[in-house]
Amino acid sequence: MDQQSKSSDGALRARAMRVIPGGMWGHQNAPRMPAGYPQYFERAQGCRTWDADGREYIDFICGWGPTILGYGDADVEAAADRQRALGDAMNGPSERLVELAELMVETVPHADWAMFSKNGTDATTACLTIARAGTGRRKILVARGAYHGAIPWCSPSVVGVTDEDRAHLLYYDYNNVESLEAAAEECRGDLAAILVSAFKHDLGKPHELPTVAFAQKARALADSADAALIVDDVRAGFRLDMGGSWELVGVRPDMAAWSKAIANGHALAAVTGNDRFREGATRIFTTGSFWTAGVSMAAAIATIRKLSAVDAVVHMRAMGQRFRDGLDAQAKRHSVPLRQSGPVQMPVLLFESDADRRLGDTFCLEALARGVYLHPSHTLFLSAAHRETDIDMALAATDEALAAVARL
Amino acid sequence: MDQQSKSSDGALRARAMRVIPGGMWGHQNAPRMPAGYPQYFERAQGCRTWDADGREYIDFICGWGPTILGYGDADVEAAADRQRALGDAMNGPSERLVELAELMVETVPHADWAMFSKNGTDATTACLTIARAGTGRRKILVARGAYHGAIPWCSPSVVGVTDEDRAHLLYYDYNNVESLEAAAEECRGDLAAILVSAFKHDLGKPHELPTVAFAQKARALADSADAALIVDDVRAGFRLDMGGSWELVGVRPDMAAWSKAIANGHALAAVTGNDRFREGATRIFTTGSFWTAGVSMAAAIATIRKLSAVDAVVHMRAMGQRFRDGLDAQAKRHSVPLRQSGPVQMPVLLFESDADRRLGDTFCLEALARGVYLHPSHTLFLSAAHRETDIDMALAATDEALAAVARL
Repeated sequence: MDQQSKSSDGALRARAMRVIPGGMWGHQNAPRMPAGYPQYFERAQGCRTWDADGREYIDFICGWGPTILGYGDADVEAAADRQRALGDAMNGPSERLVELAELMVETVPHADWAMFSKNGTDATTACLTIARAGTGRRKILVARGAYHGAIPWCSPSVVGVTDEDRAHLLYYDYNNVESLEAAAEECRGDLAAILVSAFKHDLGKPHELPTVAFAQKARALADSADAALIVDDVRAGFRLDMGGSWELVGVRPDMAAWSKAIANGHALAAVTGNDRFREGATRIFTTGSFWTAGVSMAAAIATIRKLSAVDAVVHMRAMGQRFRDGLDAQAKRHSVPLRQSGPVQMPVLLFESDADRRLGDTFCLEALARGVYLHPSHTLFLSAAHRETDIDMALAATDEALAAVARL
Repeated sequence: MDQQSKSSDGALRARAMRVIPGGMWGHQNAPRMPAGYPQYFERAQGCRTWDADGREYIDFICGWGPTILGYGDADVEAAADRQRALGDAMNGPSERLVELAELMVETVPHADWAMFSKNGTDATTACLTIARAGTGRRKILVARGAYHGAIPWCSPSVVGVTDEDRAHLLYYDYNNVESLEAAAEECRGDLAAILVSAFKHDLGKPHELPTVAFAQKARALADSADAALIVDDVRAGFRLDMGGSWELVGVRPDMAAWSKAIANGHALAAVTGNDRFREGATRIFTTGSFWTAGVSMAAAIATIRKLSAVDAVVHMRAMGQRFRDGLDAQAKRHSVPLRQSGPVQMPVLLFESDADRRLGDTFCLEALARGVYLHPSHTLFLSAAHRETDIDMALAATDEALAAVARL
C-alpha cells in the first residue's frame, strides 16, 4: 500500500476485482479490449507510455485524446505550477478564468463567450440546456450511433436509463441530408437544437468528415427553425483546426462543446457560444465544485498558446499523413485489406470484411507486443510530441504486425 | 494578458462581462451575493484566502467545501507531485486507483466497492443509474428543496429543463417519516431508490441532522421495496464522520455519493456501494475523459490518511463548537436573533424574521469588511487548518458585525 510501490498489471487487476465493480468501468475497461491490452499505467512522457509491467509504447491513444502536446509538456506544467502555488479551487475563480475565456473567444471564430466545466458530458449537456433555454423549445436532433457522453440522455448503454431520459431526441444519419431534413420536419415548431459531432467518429465504424452539403444543410435548418446548431468538438477540438473543427467546412455553429485536449490532460471542459445564445446561457443554472479551479485553466491557456505558436495542427497533420502513407504502403505490400479513415491526425484503422475483428485484433496485439499502442475500433490520436522518428519506429512495428495479419 | 499580472476585481468583472454570459455562472456567481462580495480570488493558503484586490480573509467557505485540510496542504500536494511526475490522465488508471478504492472500502463501513468521477453530480447521477440498473425499476424519492447537482434531473433551476427530465422523481419532506412513507407508497412496485442528503442543508433554510426515526424509516422502506438507499454525502463527506455521515445515526446506505472534500480541492468524486448493487454498478456505462487521472487520486489517498491520522473530524467539531459558542454569546449580548443550525463544523447562520435577509446580509458584509468570509444563506465549512487563534480572530470580527446588526 505504499504509494510509490509497483505492482504488476495482473496483481492490480486482482486487487481491483474486489473493490471496483467488475474490476473497472467505462471506456478504459481493459477486459472490453482484446486480451493482452494493459489495464494499468505506470507513467507517461511525450508520446510514450509505460504500463504497470514496465512495457514502453509509442502511444497513439494519447490518454484517449487529452494529450495533444505530449504527456507532461514542460510549458503547460510550468504554467500549472505557477497557478498551483497561488491556489486552485477557491471561493471564486482566479484571473485565469477571464484570460481563458478571452483566449477562447479570440481563438474560436463563432465564440462570443465561453463557460467552463470538467467533463465533455458537462459541456454537451450544458449546450442542450442552453439551447432549450434560449429557444423555449425541447427537441434535439442527434446522429444515430454518435457518442456525446455517458449520462442517461446520451450514454451508449441504456442500462439504468429510462425512456423519458431521451424523450425529446430525434435521430438522423450523419452526412445524410435527407434524414436530417426529415428529423427536423418531424419536430417542426419544437426544435431546440441540432447536435452534430465534429466528424463521424463512431466506435468501430469508418470515420467521415462532414460533407459541405451536410454542414450547410444543418446550418440552414437550424437557422430556418431559429434553433441552435451545436458542434460536439469534445473529441476533435484543437486537433483539426484551432478555430473549431467545422471551420474546415466553412460552417459556424452557435455553440460548441470542448474538453479532452484543451488543457493537455488537465481536467477541463468548455462551452463556447455566440451572442444569439448568450441570454440562454445566462439564464440556466449549471455548476460544479471544481469548475473554476485555476490550475486546469492555467494549463489550458498555456496549451492553446503553444498549439498556436508551434502550429500543432499542421505538425499533427504531417505526422498523421506520414503514418497513414506508411501503413497504406505496408498494407498493399502485405495484401491485407486495411482501410484507414477519418482525418489523418485522428484516424481509425479498420479491416474490410472483419466483422469478428480477427484481423483488427491481431494487428493491434502484434503492434502492442512491438511497443506501439493502437486501438482496434476507436479513433486514434496523434500529438504534437510525435516526431518523424516516432512515426518511423511505429511503422517498423506495424510492418511486422501487418505481416502477421497476412499470415492469418 | 500576462499570466502573472494582477487586475482588480472590478476590472476582471468588466472583462468577464464581455466573454462570459452574465459575467459568471453557477454557485460562485458573486452578483447573486450581496454587493460587496469579491468575485475573483488571487490566492489561498491554510484557512486564509486573498481576493483579487488583495484583501485577506479567514475563510469559512473553504472553496465551498473542498478545502478540508486547508488550502495547499503540504502532505497532499507532495503526494500529488509524486504522481504528477509519473503521469496524470493516461490510457488507463494508475495504481493509485486501486489503492484509493481499497482505502475507501476500508474507511467507509457500507462500502464493498468504489468508483470515481469528477463532479458531485457525476456521483449522484451514477447512483441513480446503478439503482435503476440493479432493481429494474424507475422511481426515485427525493427531498423537496434538496440540492443533488446541476444537470436537468436535479438542477435547482428548471430553465432549459423538460418535464420528462424529472418524470420519475417523487418528493418527500426531509425528516418527515409520513411524507416519506406516502411517497414510497405512491410508486409501489416501481421504486428504485430513496435519495437522502447527509443532512438537511437547503439554501437559506435552517439545517437539520437526520433524526434516527427518519433514517431508520428510510432504511426500512428501501429494504421492504428491495430498493436502494442512497446518501448524498457530496457536501458533508468526511466532515461529520470518516465512515460516512449516516454513521452518526447508525444507518448504512447501499450507496453514497462523494466529492468536494475527498481530495482536499483536487477535482474528484466517488460512488461507494455495497455488494447488493455491485452487479448493477458493473452493468451501467459511465465514464469521463479524466476520471482515472492519477494526481487527484494520489491527493485523495493523502487526504483521507491525514484526516484519519490527525483526527480531523474531532478537531473541526471542536473549532466549530468554539465558533458557535462564541457567536451565540455575542448574539445574546447584542440581542440579535441569530439562529445557528446544522452540525457545528458545517453550520448555517440565519437570523429570525429576516425574510429580506437584511440582518443576514449586514452581518456577513460587516464580517467581510473585517476579514472574515461568511455566507448569508449557504452552509459554511470549517477545516482542519482552522486553529483556535483563527476562530478567536474571526469572533473578534463577528462581534463588531453583530453590533452593526444590533444598530439596524
